[in-house]
Amino acid sequence: MNQVIETLLNHRSVRDFEDKPLTWEQVETIVASAQAASTSSFLQAYSIIGVTDREKKEKLAEVVGNQPYVAKNGHFFVFCADLHRHAVVGEMENVDVTSPIESTEKFMVAVVDASLAAQNAAAAAESMGLGICYIGGVRNNLEAVRQILKTPDHVLPVFGMAVGYPASLNDRKPRLPLRHVYMENEYQQDEQLYKKQLEEYNEIVAGYYAERTGGKRRDTWTGQMASMLEKKARMYMKEFVAKIKMNIR
Amino acid sequence: MNQVIETLLNHRSVRDFEDKPLTWEQVETIVASAQAASTSSFLQAYSIIGVTDREKKEKLAEVVGNQPYVAKNGHFFVFCADLHRHAVVGEMENVDVTSPIESTEKFMVAVVDASLAAQNAAAAAESMGLGICYIGGVRNNLEAVRQILKTPDHVLPVFGMAVGYPASLNDRKPRLPLRHVYMENEYQQDEQLYKKQLEEYNEIVAGYYAERTGGKRRDTWTGQMASMLEKKARMYMKEFVAKIKMNIR
Repeated sequence: MNQVIETLLNHRSVRDFEDKPLTWEQVETIVASAQAASTSSFLQAYSIIGVTDREKKEKLAEVVGNQPYVAKNGHFFVFCADLHRHAVVGEMENVDVTSPIESTEKFMVAVVDASLAAQNAAAAAESMGLGICYIGGVRNNLEAVRQILKTPDHVLPVFGMAVGYPASLNDRKPRLPLRHVYMENEYQQDEQLYKKQLEEYNEIVAGYYAERTGGKRRDTWTGQMASMLEKKARMYMKEFVAKIKMNIR
Repeated sequence: MNQVIETLLNHRSVRDFEDKPLTWEQVETIVASAQAASTSSFLQAYSIIGVTDREKKEKLAEVVGNQPYVAKNGHFFVFCADLHRHAVVGEMENVDVTSPIESTEKFMVAVVDASLAAQNAAAAAESMGLGICYIGGVRNNLEAVRQILKTPDHVLPVFGMAVGYPASLNDRKPRLPLRHVYMENEYQQDEQLYKKQLEEYNEIVAGYYAERTGGKRRDTWTGQMASMLEKKARMYMKEFVAKIKMNIR
């Protein structure tokens, strides 16, 4: 196993960082690695906002839902799906690009581009001995995040990423069975087998929690997912995304 | 510079593969690396379909827009945003999850999850001396792709990935200036500076093409983007995604 695969397989989210800032050289390496990722049709439809201002970090930590590691870390990045750049391109080249940049297709492209860049950033950071945690919580209150970061229309903060020196390490949560996520030639057509795989996975997840809580917690995966989905979080997203002129046609 | 960062920075798309299939061990390592990526709220909202059947590969190569490397490679993966699994979870747990899994928020989550997994797969493959190419062309005709792969509702093939032994290598295209993609504390408010950065980048891109064509081609980035966006590709996406019950509320 080479160092790359070892780094990837060893990933776990870190939510507890030492109070030690990254150097500019580290930030630059992380961003350069992010930029090296593939990008759909050379569009490069993303931006990365590094938040270093103490007050802004505290505000962000609050609006994402009181996650202290959003303020306390080595560096905080926000990955944005960005089609504002392409609106400016339209202006510079005198071409009407309104309808493509407001399309569902380009919305997806921008979300994909931001994600590919982010995952490279994560791998680069972890290879340097740093820990990372994706912060989907930026989507809890995008109106507030938008005001803090002053993002224009056509720019959607998709998630944050806290990076820093790990103060403590979590365990790796077991993933779905490889043969459940990976299928060959067509999507799994046998619903009974599909459910059986999920039931087997439930046992693994329950065992994982039981072992770590002296038997007190025995959540299954399907149970956890069902109670989470029942809560219907962030249902304002469609409206918000349309408000900033994305995903509307 | 460690091996991880070296691998990431050295990425270029490969569109010309030797006719040599990957071993199951290689496929397994790539998929396991993909699964090790972060996933929003443990949702694991993606699936990976490996296409090995010769006839299906030929058909896919055709419907994505005659890209021969979709058929000729070491292995062809299709990364899907997948919320069907969560529909099944709702059934198993007797909870109504319709509205969240059909939301724009969960559509984004699934696209992000598929992308993070894919980028890990790409890095793992490249670390083993393989080349990769993302195939956004699967979105050219999703109705056909859906029929070939028999994907149910709530499953969207987002992109393919051809993996294999490189028969020839492309150059790395220069990326946007780091200080244009990366901003600090707030989005760039100075539109004039923003445009100036794009003009400087235009020079770099034009130089890149000129050097490789003996001066014949001198495309700028903004010019290339404008003529591409003018074509308004894949404007059927909003409707298609709604048809498979994603991104509708």
